[in-house]
Amino acid sequence: MTDPAEPSPHESHPWKLSMSGLDLSTLAASESLFTLANGHIGLRGSLEEGEPRAVPGTYINGFFEERPLPHAEAGYGFPESGQTVVNVTDGKLIRLYIGDSPFDVRYSTTQFHERTLDLRSGTLERRTEWTSPNGSSIRVTSRRLVSFTQRALAAISYEVESLDGDVYVALQSDLLANEPGAAPSHDPRNGASLDRPLHAELAACRDQRATLVHRTLRSDLLVAAGMDHVLEVPDHVQTTIEAAGDLARFTVTARLPRGTKLHLVKLIAYGWSSRRSAPALRDQVEAALAVGRLAGWQGLLEGQRHFLDDFWSRADVRIEGDPGLQQAVRVSMFHVLQAGARAEGQAIGARGLTGLGYDGHTFWDAETFVLPMLTYTIPRAARDHLMWRHLTLEQARERARELGCEGAAFPWRTIDGRECSGYWPAGTAAFHINADVADATARYLAATGDTEFETNCGVELLVETARLWASLGHFEGALFRIDGVTGPDEYTAIVDDNLYTNVMAQKNLEEAANACERRPDVALRLGVDAAEMRRWREAADAVVLLYDDQLGVHSQSEGFTSHDEWDFEGTEPQMYPLLLHFPYFQLYRKQVIKQVDLVLAMHLRGELFSPEEKARNFAYYEARTVRDSSLSAATQAVLAVETGHLELGYDYWAEVAFVDLGDTLDNAGDTLDNAGDGLHIASMAGSWLVAVAGFGGMRDHGGRVTFAPRLPPALTRIRFQMTFSGRVVLVDTRRNGSASPEETTYELLEGDAIRTWHHGEPVDLEAGAPVTLPVPAAPEVEPVHQPFGRAPRRRQPQP
Amino acid sequence: MTDPAEPSPHESHPWKLSMSGLDLSTLAASESLFTLANGHIGLRGSLEEGEPRAVPGTYINGFFEERPLPHAEAGYGFPESGQTVVNVTDGKLIRLYIGDSPFDVRYSTTQFHERTLDLRSGTLERRTEWTSPNGSSIRVTSRRLVSFTQRALAAISYEVESLDGDVYVALQSDLLANEPGAAPSHDPRNGASLDRPLHAELAACRDQRATLVHRTLRSDLLVAAGMDHVLEVPDHVQTTIEAAGDLARFTVTARLPRGTKLHLVKLIAYGWSSRRSAPALRDQVEAALAVGRLAGWQGLLEGQRHFLDDFWSRADVRIEGDPGLQQAVRVSMFHVLQAGARAEGQAIGARGLTGLGYDGHTFWDAETFVLPMLTYTIPRAARDHLMWRHLTLEQARERARELGCEGAAFPWRTIDGRECSGYWPAGTAAFHINADVADATARYLAATGDTEFETNCGVELLVETARLWASLGHFEGALFRIDGVTGPDEYTAIVDDNLYTNVMAQKNLEEAANACERRPDVALRLGVDAAEMRRWREAADAVVLLYDDQLGVHSQSEGFTSHDEWDFEGTEPQMYPLLLHFPYFQLYRKQVIKQVDLVLAMHLRGELFSPEEKARNFAYYEARTVRDSSLSAATQAVLAVETGHLELGYDYWAEVAFVDLGDTLDNAGDTLDNAGDGLHIASMAGSWLVAVAGFGGMRDHGGRVTFAPRLPPALTRIRFQMTFSGRVVLVDTRRNGSASPEETTYELLEGDAIRTWHHGEPVDLEAGAPVTLPVPAAPEVEPVHQPFGRAPRRRQPQP
Repeated sequence: MTDPAEPSPHESHPWKLSMSGLDLSTLAASESLFTLANGHIGLRGSLEEGEPRAVPGTYINGFFEERPLPHAEAGYGFPESGQTVVNVTDGKLIRLYIGDSPFDVRYSTTQFHERTLDLRSGTLERRTEWTSPNGSSIRVTSRRLVSFTQRALAAISYEVESLDGDVYVALQSDLLANEPGAAPSHDPRNGASLDRPLHAELAACRDQRATLVHRTLRSDLLVAAGMDHVLEVPDHVQTTIEAAGDLARFTVTARLPRGTKLHLVKLIAYGWSSRRSAPALRDQVEAALAVGRLAGWQGLLEGQRHFLDDFWSRADVRIEGDPGLQQAVRVSMFHVLQAGARAEGQAIGARGLTGLGYDGHTFWDAETFVLPMLTYTIPRAARDHLMWRHLTLEQARERARELGCEGAAFPWRTIDGRECSGYWPAGTAAFHINADVADATARYLAATGDTEFETNCGVELLVETARLWASLGHFEGALFRIDGVTGPDEYTAIVDDNLYTNVMAQKNLEEAANACERRPDVALRLGVDAAEMRRWREAADAVVLLYDDQLGVHSQSEGFTSHDEWDFEGTEPQMYPLLLHFPYFQLYRKQVIKQVDLVLAMHLRGELFSPEEKARNFAYYEARTVRDSSLSAATQAVLAVETGHLELGYDYWAEVAFVDLGDTLDNAGDTLDNAGDGLHIASMAGSWLVAVAGFGGMRDHGGRVTFAPRLPPALTRIRFQMTFSGRVVLVDTRRNGSASPEETTYELLEGDAIRTWHHGEPVDLEAGAPVTLPVPAAPEVEPVHQPFGRAPRRRQPQP
Repeated sequence: MTDPAEPSPHESHPWKLSMSGLDLSTLAASESLFTLANGHIGLRGSLEEGEPRAVPGTYINGFFEERPLPHAEAGYGFPESGQTVVNVTDGKLIRLYIGDSPFDVRYSTTQFHERTLDLRSGTLERRTEWTSPNGSSIRVTSRRLVSFTQRALAAISYEVESLDGDVYVALQSDLLANEPGAAPSHDPRNGASLDRPLHAELAACRDQRATLVHRTLRSDLLVAAGMDHVLEVPDHVQTTIEAAGDLARFTVTARLPRGTKLHLVKLIAYGWSSRRSAPALRDQVEAALAVGRLAGWQGLLEGQRHFLDDFWSRADVRIEGDPGLQQAVRVSMFHVLQAGARAEGQAIGARGLTGLGYDGHTFWDAETFVLPMLTYTIPRAARDHLMWRHLTLEQARERARELGCEGAAFPWRTIDGRECSGYWPAGTAAFHINADVADATARYLAATGDTEFETNCGVELLVETARLWASLGHFEGALFRIDGVTGPDEYTAIVDDNLYTNVMAQKNLEEAANACERRPDVALRLGVDAAEMRRWREAADAVVLLYDDQLGVHSQSEGFTSHDEWDFEGTEPQMYPLLLHFPYFQLYRKQVIKQVDLVLAMHLRGELFSPEEKARNFAYYEARTVRDSSLSAATQAVLAVETGHLELGYDYWAEVAFVDLGDTLDNAGDTLDNAGDGLHIASMAGSWLVAVAGFGGMRDHGGRVTFAPRLPPALTRIRFQMTFSGRVVLVDTRRNGSASPEETTYELLEGDAIRTWHHGEPVDLEAGAPVTLPVPAAPEVEPVHQPFGRAPRRRQPQP
C-alpha cells in the first residue's frame, strides 16, 4: 500500500471548496463537507468506488427507524421510543476494475486526486489519476449533483480514460442496502447506529435500470431507490443488469484503447412513504428516472446552475479583506441552502442531510438560526419548514395534553413530530422551542406577507403556542411568571422566569393576539374569542424580566446572579466541553453558561433593552459563557458588534464560519462532536447571521427591517443582499483601508420603493436610486473578557 | 379445587398477628407481614410446601447482583450499574405427600388454616387441618424462627399428625436455588427481577445434612446455604440425602398410624462472602448447623424468647383505648427490630429483608426514621447501621470526588455503598442524606456516649459529611447558601436553599466542629485543623433560612411560595400518586408536596422555630402535602400534636401504623407499591415515632432528652420506655375517661439519677422514685386542612 499524494489544505477560492490528496484522518469531515443535498435527498461525499470511506451516508428527509429509549428509572411522560435517521440504499456506488485490480486510491500509486465542491454549479467534481498494480494508468473524472430542480433525482457523470495503453475495464454500478456503517460512538450527543434496519420488499430490473424497495421494521416506512444509466463507450462493451434483496447491479465490461474514454451517466432516484405500497413506490422512482433520462445530464446541470444563480443573486454575501472567511461564509450558506431548499413537508435537521449526528433530529435551532437566513434569502424554504411544524401540530397538541398543558407543545428533538428527548430537564423543560417556532412564523409572515400561509398555518401556529404559554405561566399578583423551565443555556435547567423564555413567550402571546386581530376569520375558526386574546395581552404585559439591582444587570433566571461562580482558572482546557467532565448538578447551580441565553434575548428582543443595559449585560454574561455549544458564537458576535466590540465580533465570526471547515475545531467546544458526524447547519447559518445581523446590524423588531452596518478593522467591504416584502435590497459597506471612514450604499435591486433605517435614520429606497450614507464612528468601549482560557482565537486574515 | 376456609380479618391480639384461612388476593402482603428476619437472614412467610405462593423470598443482607442501568441520554456521573437483592437458595421448603397426593391447601378440603406471628416468642406458627383427595385427614403444625441469638441460623419445627387412619407420608426438605419468581412489575418504584442469578459452585451432602454454594455472575459474590435435620417418627422410616446443582433434598418416607406424629426439625444456615472460597463458606454454614444441633429446637426457642423479653422490657409502647392500634404499633416495632437486630456491618434496607421492593436498597429513611427508634430501644442495632455507613466511606469519598466535591457523598440508594440511583434530580441532588447520616450519628453518640464508636467511626462520619457541605455551599456576602439540591419532598427538585437541607447541613457542620473539639486526637488523625473548624462554624452561623414576609411562613426553598398552586379540586382521586400521572416538570414548579420537608425540619431542628412559626408553617404546608410517600404521615402526626391538633395526629398515627397492615391502603399514597413487595420499615418505625415524639413529645435537640406528653381524645393511656445515657426511663400518661385531666408518671427503671423535662419543666428522676405531673391543657387551635380529598381517614378505635 502506498500513500495517496500528500494532502494540501483547501484553497480559498471564493466559489469553490477543493481538497487535494486524500487524508484519511479527515476523511469523515471531508465526506460531510462534500455532501450534496437538496433538502430531500442527501448524499455524503464518499468516493464512487465506496472505499476508503468513513461514513457511507445516503439520507432521505423524514425517513427514520424507531428504537427503544431505555430509562434507568422511568417517569410519567418520558418518551419510550426514539427515532434515528437511516442510511438508506446507497446509489452512489460505481466500483471500477482495471484489468484484475480494483480501483482503490489506498493501493498502488495515485498521481493526482482532487475533489471540488462548486457553489455555483452545485456539483461535486472529483479527478483522479491512478496507476494500477500492473502498471495501467487511468484518469477518472466524476461529477455528481443532487438536483434542486428535480427533487427526487441525483446523477453522477463518471468518466474513465485510459492514459497509456489498452485496458480492460469493468464497472459495477450498484444500489446497496444495509451497507455496514461506522463503529458506534460513546459520546452521548452522537446518534444511535442501527444494524441492518432495512427489510427487502421488492427488487426489479430491466435494460439498464433497477429498483429496490425496502421497509423499516419498527417505524414501518417504505423506501424505494432506483437507478438508470446512459453509457458512451468507444469500443466493444457488454452490460448486464440484476436486482435481488439488498443489491442491484449494472455491470459494464469494455476494452478501452489508449486515450479513449468510457462515459457513464448514472441517474439515481429516491422515494419513501408511510402509506403507499411497494409497487407504487417503485413506479414513482421509475417515473423520476424517466424524467431524468429526458432532461439528460446536461439538462440537470443547467437546471442546477440556473437555480443557484437565482439564489446567489438574492442571497450572496461578499467580503473583502479575508478570502478565507469569504470562502467559508459561502460554503456555509450553500450547505444551509442544501439542508432546506426542497424539504417540502419535512424538517430541517440540525445536521441537515449530511450525517448521523444527533440521530438526524430537528431542534429549536432550525427556527432560531437557520430560518432567519432562509426567510431573507429563499423564503419558500423557510415556509416549507414551518409547514412541517404545522403538519406535526396534532402530535404537539397531544404532547401538551400529556404534559397537562393547553395548546401545542412542540418536541425538543424529533424527526416525525413526536418527542424523542431522553433527558427531560434539557428536553421537555425547554419549552422556549414553542416561542422559537412562533418567532420564526411571525418573522416569515412579516418578511413575506404570505397570506395563504397565514390563513392555513401561520395563525394556528401562533395561537396554539400562545395557548401553551397561557397555561404554563401563572399570575402572582400583577406579575406573570413562568416557573420550572429550561432556557437555551443547557448548563442551567429547570429554573423560574428564564429571561429568554419570558421575553420570547411575551412576543408569542402578542403576535398571536395581533394575528387574530388581523385575521378574525381564522381566529373564529380556531375558537379564539376576545376574552382569550385579552388574557394573552394581559399575560404579555405582565411578564417578569428579572433585574439584579446590585449588579446592574438582568438575571438569566431567578437566583442566577446569586449562584456561585465557576472556577474557570482551575478548569483545565481538556475538561471542555464541561458536560463530559462534570455532573449536571454542578453545572446547573453555578454561574457557568454553555451558550448564549440572555444574550440571545438581547438579539431577538433587542427593543426591550437600552444600549447601556445591553453593554452591561453583554460584559457580565460574556465573562461566564464557555461556548460548549456551536449555537453561541454567532449571537455573541452579533451583540459584540452592537455593543462596539468589533474585533471580538470578527473573531467570533471566524469561529462560527470555520466550525466545520475545521480551522477552529481545537478551540470550539464541539471538539468531539465534529464535522465527521455531519455539518452544524445552524452554525453555518450563523455565518450569514454575523454578516447581516452582526456587521450589517440588521434587526427586524416588530417586522420593521433596519440596518446599522460597521466593518471590523481587518475588512474593507461587506456587501449583502436581503429579500423582504417582495424587495431585494443590497447593503454595501466599504472603506479604503483600515483608517479611512466607512460608508454604506443601499440599493433596491427588485420591487417597489421602501423605507429602511441606517443607524436609526430613515432611508427611502427607490429603484435605480442607490443611497450612500456615512457610517457613524463606533463608540469607545471598555474591553470585555471571556472565562479563563475561553477567548476566541484572534482572527488573522489569510489569502 | 375447593376454597380454603373463609378468611377472617386478623384479630387485635396485643402480642400476636394471626390470620385464618388463606386469601390468595392478599397472599403477597401476608407473606411480607409474616416474614421472620434477624437483620442478617430474612425468610418471607411463605408456606413450607412452597405453593400457593406470591413471592418466595429468602434474602441475606448485603447479598446482591448487579444489573446495567440504561440511560436514554447518558450524562457524566450517571451510575451505569445498579444492584438488586437476590432471592437466594430457599431453605424453607418442606414438601409433604399424603399417600400419592401433594399437600396443597388449594386442592381438596382444608378444615382449618391459621398462621400466627408471635411478637414475644419471635416465631411464626402455622396450623392446618386438611383432608387429602383420597380422604386421609392430617394436621400439620409448623413453627419457624430466624434466630436473634445465632444470626446465621433459622429453624423449622414441622409436625404431621394422622387424624383418622394409617397413612404413608413422604417429606422432601429442600434447598432450592434459582426458584422461579413473581412476574415483573411495571411500577418504576418496584425492584428489578433477575432471571436465574445464581451459578452453582459446590454441592455436598452427608447423613441428614446438605450444603449448596452458588455464585452471582456480575457482582461475583458467593452464598452458601446448608440444612440439617432432626427427625422423630413413631414407626418405620426411610431417609435419603442428595445434593447437586440447584437442589439439595432430604427425603423422609414413613408410615404414620392414626393419632401419631412425625416431627422434623430443620436447621437452616446461610453465609455469604465476596472474598472467601466456596469450601470455606461451606465449612462456615456447616459449623453454624453444628451449633444449631447443639442448641436444639428448644434452645433456639429459649434464646429467641430471652432476646425479645429484653427488647420489649426496654422498648414497649402500651396503648389503652385502641386495641387495633396497640397491635399495629407492636407488630411494626417487631418488624423494625427484625430489620436491624443483627445487621452487623450491613445496612437496614427500606423494606428490611421482607421483599424485593426498591431492589433491596437502603435510603436516607434508615437514618431519619428507623434509627431514632433503634437508638432509644436497641442502640447496638443503630450502631451497626452507622458502622455500615462508615465501612462505605471510601465509596462515598470517591463519589464526592466524581461530583467535584470534598468529603464524602453518601449514595441516595445502594446496597454496597455505591450510588445506584438512575434519576439524578431525585437521587444525586438529594444531598441531605449526608446530613441525615450525621444527624443519626450525633443522636447515637448523645444517647449512648459510645466513645469507642466515636473514636473509630463517629467523628469521621461527622467530619467527612461536614466537608461535603463546606464544599457544596458558598458564601454570598454574609450568607451561606446551598444551591441546586433536592430536599426530602420529591415533588420539588434542584432548588436553591432548601430549608430542610440548610438546617440539617448547619447541624452537621456544628456537630462536626463539636466532635473535633471534644476529640482533638481524632481530629488530628483526620487532618482537621482549627481553620477548617472555624470555616464550618462560620458557614453554620451564616446558613440561609428563607422566610416569606408577606405570607408569614418559612419557604421550603427559594421561590417556593411564589409558585403556582396545584389544582387539587381538579385532581381525581385515581390520579394519586401524582408521579404516576403527571410529569415531573409540573410537579416541580407548583406548590404541591409529596412528603414532609419543611415540616420534618421543624421536627428535627424544632429549636430553630417559635411555637407561632411552627403553627403557621404547619398549617401552610399541611394544605399542600399530598402524602404520596409513606415517609410523611408520621412526621405530620408529630407536628400536628406539637401544634395542638391532637385528633389529626391520632388519625395520622393510624395511617402510619396500618400502611402495611392494610387497613388504609386505599387511602395512603403507596397504593400500588404495597406490602406485597415488602414492608415499609421506615413507616413502621414511624408508628413508634408518633407514640414517643408525637404524643410523648420527646425531643432530643442538642442531645438533651425532653418530653411533652398529651393523649388524643380516644385514648386513655400511652406508656413507653426509652433507653438513653445508660438509663431506661418509663413515661406513662393516663387519664380516666376522655373528659378527665391527664397526668404523666416518669420512672427511672434502670441506671443512675437523671434530669429530664416535662412540658419545659425539669424533672429529676432517681431509682425507685416515680414522679407524677399533670399534663397542661392543650392550646385552642384553628383547624388546619389538607389538600382536597387528601385528609387522613378519621380513626375510629375498634376492639
